[in-house]
Amino acid sequence: MRKLKASVIGATGYTGKEIVRILINHPQVELVYLTSSTYAGKKVAEVFPEFRSKLDQELVNLDLETVSRDSDLVFTALPHTVSMEVAPALLRKGVKVIDLSADYRLKDPVVYQEWYKKGHNQLSKGLLAQAVYGLPEIYFDKIKGSSLVANPGCYPTSIILGVAPLLKYHLVKPEGIIIDAKSGTTGAGRKLSLDLHFSECNENFKAYKIIGHNHIPEIEQELSSIYFKGNKGENNIQDIKEGRGIKISFTPHLLPISRGILSTGYLTLEESKEEGEVLEAYQKFYQKAPFVRIFEPPYLPEIKLAVGTNYCDIGFRIDKRVSQIKIISVIDNLLKGAAGQAVQNMNIMSGFPETEGLNF
Amino acid sequence: MRKLKASVIGATGYTGKEIVRILINHPQVELVYLTSSTYAGKKVAEVFPEFRSKLDQELVNLDLETVSRDSDLVFTALPHTVSMEVAPALLRKGVKVIDLSADYRLKDPVVYQEWYKKGHNQLSKGLLAQAVYGLPEIYFDKIKGSSLVANPGCYPTSIILGVAPLLKYHLVKPEGIIIDAKSGTTGAGRKLSLDLHFSECNENFKAYKIIGHNHIPEIEQELSSIYFKGNKGENNIQDIKEGRGIKISFTPHLLPISRGILSTGYLTLEESKEEGEVLEAYQKFYQKAPFVRIFEPPYLPEIKLAVGTNYCDIGFRIDKRVSQIKIISVIDNLLKGAAGQAVQNMNIMSGFPETEGLNF
Amino acid sequence: MRKLKASVIGATGYTGKEIVRILINHPQVELVYLTSSTYAGKKVAEVFPEFRSKLDQELVNLDLETVSRDSDLVFTALPHTVSMEVAPALLRKGVKVIDLSADYRLKDPVVYQEWYKKGHNQLSKGLLAQAVYGLPEIYFDKIKGSSLVANPGCYPTSIILGVAPLLKYHLVKPEGIIIDAKSGTTGAGRKLSLDLHFSECNENFKAYKIIGHNHIPEIEQELSSIYFKGNKGENNIQDIKEGRGIKISFTPHLLPISRGILSTGYLTLEESKEEGEVLEAYQKFYQKAPFVRIFEPPYLPEIKLAVGTNYCDIGFRIDKRVSQIKIISVIDNLLKGAAGQAVQNMNIMSGFPETEGLNF
Amino acid sequence: MRKLKASVIGATGYTGKEIVRILINHPQVELVYLTSSTYAGKKVAEVFPEFRSKLDQELVNLDLETVSRDSDLVFTALPHTVSMEVAPALLRKGVKVIDLSADYRLKDPVVYQEWYKKGHNQLSKGLLAQAVYGLPEIYFDKIKGSSLVANPGCYPTSIILGVAPLLKYHLVKPEGIIIDAKSGTTGAGRKLSLDLHFSECNENFKAYKIIGHNHIPEIEQELSSIYFKGNKGENNIQDIKEGRGIKISFTPHLLPISRGILSTGYLTLEESKEEGEVLEAYQKFYQKAPFVRIFEPPYLPEIKLAVGTNYCDIGFRIDKRVSQIKIISVIDNLLKGAAGQAVQNMNIMSGFPETEGLNF
Repeated sequence: MRKLKASVIGATGYTGKEIVRILINHPQVELVYLTSSTYAGKKVAEVFPEFRSKLDQELVNLDLETVSRDSDLVFTALPHTVSMEVAPALLRKGVKVIDLSADYRLKDPVVYQEWYKKGHNQLSKGLLAQAVYGLPEIYFDKIKGSSLVANPGCYPTSIILGVAPLLKYHLVKPEGIIIDAKSGTTGAGRKLSLDLHFSECNENFKAYKIIGHNHIPEIEQELSSIYFKGNKGENNIQDIKEGRGIKISFTPHLLPISRGILSTGYLTLEESKEEGEVLEAYQKFYQKAPFVRIFEPPYLPEIKLAVGTNYCDIGFRIDKRVSQIKIISVIDNLLKGAAGQAVQNMNIMSGFPETEGLNF
Repeated sequence: MRKLKASVIGATGYTGKEIVRILINHPQVELVYLTSSTYAGKKVAEVFPEFRSKLDQELVNLDLETVSRDSDLVFTALPHTVSMEVAPALLRKGVKVIDLSADYRLKDPVVYQEWYKKGHNQLSKGLLAQAVYGLPEIYFDKIKGSSLVANPGCYPTSIILGVAPLLKYHLVKPEGIIIDAKSGTTGAGRKLSLDLHFSECNENFKAYKIIGHNHIPEIEQELSSIYFKGNKGENNIQDIKEGRGIKISFTPHLLPISRGILSTGYLTLEESKEEGEVLEAYQKFYQKAPFVRIFEPPYLPEIKLAVGTNYCDIGFRIDKRVSQIKIISVIDNLLKGAAGQAVQNMNIMSGFPETEGLNF
Repeated sequence: MRKLKASVIGATGYTGKEIVRILINHPQVELVYLTSSTYAGKKVAEVFPEFRSKLDQELVNLDLETVSRDSDLVFTALPHTVSMEVAPALLRKGVKVIDLSADYRLKDPVVYQEWYKKGHNQLSKGLLAQAVYGLPEIYFDKIKGSSLVANPGCYPTSIILGVAPLLKYHLVKPEGIIIDAKSGTTGAGRKLSLDLHFSECNENFKAYKIIGHNHIPEIEQELSSIYFKGNKGENNIQDIKEGRGIKISFTPHLLPISRGILSTGYLTLEESKEEGEVLEAYQKFYQKAPFVRIFEPPYLPEIKLAVGTNYCDIGFRIDKRVSQIKIISVIDNLLKGAAGQAVQNMNIMSGFPETEGLNF
Repeated sequence: MRKLKASVIGATGYTGKEIVRILINHPQVELVYLTSSTYAGKKVAEVFPEFRSKLDQELVNLDLETVSRDSDLVFTALPHTVSMEVAPALLRKGVKVIDLSADYRLKDPVVYQEWYKKGHNQLSKGLLAQAVYGLPEIYFDKIKGSSLVANPGCYPTSIILGVAPLLKYHLVKPEGIIIDAKSGTTGAGRKLSLDLHFSECNENFKAYKIIGHNHIPEIEQELSSIYFKGNKGENNIQDIKEGRGIKISFTPHLLPISRGILSTGYLTLEESKEEGEVLEAYQKFYQKAPFVRIFEPPYLPEIKLAVGTNYCDIGFRIDKRVSQIKIISVIDNLLKGAAGQAVQNMNIMSGFPETEGLNF
């Protein structure tokens, strides 16, 4: 069978590297081009010695012409505001795109500009309507038919999956949602900074960007969509535009570990519920999702259980003293939070089994 | 000048050891007895080789007779429900006691029994009225005249200090307070468990006891007291008894680091406020507190800045999108959260400068 | 095709668990019994929640009768001196055994008794001659035809593979070999001890068992065998018995990380050599070994590059100032140092591709 | 009493910062200038928030004129080859200098040029004869009368102190000395590099500069001096120049922890010795050294026991199988390995008690 020809643009950041690592063992994919502006001309195993004996490919500068000619599908693992310079040209050539930046996640270009301080040009703006938010547990069918998938952010993946059933079935109030999230350092990328210098980061823990982290609009867009659709159908964008959308309080923290995100969510129950009822709601919502594991109370996920896998592990407890439900949602930020989810999307877009190449 | 004769009961847990470490360099204290049921008969430097060349003392079994005869003040670093077997006898002999367990923290013995599953006997119950909650930033004057100080828990110290000014000055609503706290492993003590086995705990992060952690009643007692006194004086116990006390949602997590607690608090502003106004409230509240450091927005505390010190570092930001104030409060769990605070209490009870021996 | 029926005795230590983890994804193996004296009766996913959605099997008590009846091959992941109580019965029933203890590694039962303080009984002693030391890079052909493979220790694997070519080709003197080795904590197992308590182990580093670690005789046996065979054929055991065997100085240290061993070897060159010549010797020796990666000077292996793989990564430098060659040899202690190598041996014994199920 | 006026040139590297941290609490020192080319104009607590409430000083650009006018003693915490541009001018103005670079450690300027790739100018070369190698346990008397102390490197401190008594008393052969050393990351400084990026360094361990680390000449100079003086007096430089000096094999490794160095030394005993005899040699050699702790076999130092102190902890075992003595020597690289030792030297040069300000 002819293999899918895939290229990775931005192959030497942590996300790009992780996509490569997964695709090396994917039985239905052939890696075509790996681009890197920093390391072009070097063998990939020179930059990442862990690829010795596994991959003998040269990193190249991005040439959109040849990449689009020789690839069926391209992963764009580029910084926010840079992907939008690349995606339109690829799509025009008939190449499918899975974009790992934020550029096509937000439906409303005004909101994008507000949070990312840069606007889409006309060409790119025109793609927003066709771009699908790449969370397979919510948008499986749309992803299947899409040419442009906006791969979700790491925090949003853990948070949206963690609370979606509660909002969908209106078990909780849409107001006052608080998310206290904690991420390992690979989430901050491979770029050097004093904050991520080992001697500074080790044995430390801190909150950062506690006001206005740019994953907020993406989370609110999706939670609002789930909540309002759950209730009254498709008119949710109007709701959101008119200020009736869900607003969350979100605070990220930096863990002194390499991988993993644990998000703790605090939501107010609409009415008193037993844990068994809520458990059933989760199990129903995720019955066809191969990469979501629901933990029955009192068991709860932990970062080490999800790291190295493409699972999103979800657990919860009801705190009757304060009429609250607490959610614990865990992912590996580089897998289900980025590269693993991107390959899951690729599988769906290409008609492969959803879990192909992702059973580590 | 005659030195204060101090003994430590339970000197080989992490808290007891830390008290010893501090007192070795305290210029006004003479260490009399260090008791340990596990290691009696051994030199302290055999158990803790870091004390070589610093302390050449033998660990002994607890003999209340000799300890109370030869000590002016005793630190009881014993498990909950054990201290209450020891403290009354010491006090009767005229010895001052700083108890590091929870046994004398809760004013209401019914609440104690509910959360700790054991009741006080008559003798011990009689001491509750005279016991002072040992948070010097709130109860300095009472501590000064006290013979029995109940040293606060580690989480409660970080939380109460973090939100006290907001409640005192009624800047926030007393309902809906959420505390998401993260602690290093020494907080769990020196007792072996699979959870704390290095290979299990390393590179991990998880929530634990997410419903019903037994630091909750202590936090609620003190926050209620601060809030109601702020408003209308002394009648708060009645308020609390009648169910009008503050109820918090509290979730502790385990960090893969040795020391430090960072508590993130979420509170709702009573009315819109600028950060400058709130900053003034904090500075006013803590103007005489040598061990509280207030960070001006946008600066925030981090665990590494407080570890190894007796400071409680506090910062905050106002999130106008959701009318919320977020508090970050950090301590070293073994110092301001236990041993350091105990020595601070000792200094106050003994008329020494509050910071004596605590400037590391 | 009929799958190989494999059982794991001692499935809940770190090594046993890792064998299970590998075999879950091995296309040619069916897991029959997983035994555990501690957790018998529980589901494996109750003990190891990371197996949720992957393995729904119950842990059972060891019943040699049923295990040998229903298994083609058994992994005995038991403590030293315990395996010898189990292996003979399995072999007698025609089951192949891969033993992960030290019990069948040493050819000379006198040496075994000296280092492990327990003797073999007659039955077990009789198996020593047929047992093959399970290092595929040295004993591939013998392993292929064997029913009893003694899986090497973790330190010995890294050390023997690291220096074998140098000794085989007599590039170094057999005297004065020094090995300074550093291991992550999983090497010490899942049993609780204060040394491995997170708060004690974290941010620490230390040497342990610096005299007389019981991996020494195994290393010396194999190095002597390689050296004397390289020179003059099969009569090495006589050499060793008469005291002409290689004696090494070996010092293990404990790293505050979960996985990985890095061994630094110091050997004296027989005569001046260029690094290129030595490199060729290594490449020649390991030309057919899929799990050995040779790093060309000046590149050197690091623990993170080998962790999570079944590779042994080897690098070296020649220090002309002191006529010495320094070797750096790295493995994942649970994979190439234990479970991965065991599965590699299983593959060879069963006629599967050597790398089957091991390409993570 | 008039305090010593001390300045720190290069106050914002890890070493400079640690000197400041110590001097804040030193009762006999007044901090005059803290210079930093990177952060001049900022308050020190802006750069290092841990100094809040402790030090309210402004970082300034280096002005040799004012620094030398207003200081009695200056710590130069500058990179190698930079200190030599500064020290001569300070000394000429009558200011005492403790230099933390390598510039004045090597007696022979030819050796310096060989290892550091830059030569001394005439002025600086002229200072080599008067510079004292600042290891108080060896050169106390010389340090006392010196104006220019060359503070030893971190690895050399641990190694020289670890083996000095063995060489002094000729208990070991001077040939074949092997040192396998392991350091925490602060030893590599505050400068960013991918190697020290948390995500790269965490859960890793590796050797680096395994050939030709530039601490080698300093170690060899001092070991040769100790060995030859032990034997036949002052003519050792001639011995060394004629190639009879000690040559060591030295291999540093990077530990994924913040602080601490553990050096493992392998030496050959001159003749068979019992551990008790060797212990006496160590105790005799260090009887007046307040910062050396000798561990009696079988006890051995560990990194956590020395971190946070100015001690050098030394232990050893004799391995009779291979006629070898193994040394374990541990320090905190920023304290006894740099800033602590510098303050110890300052105390000696200034007539203060040797341990003043160093009892943490």
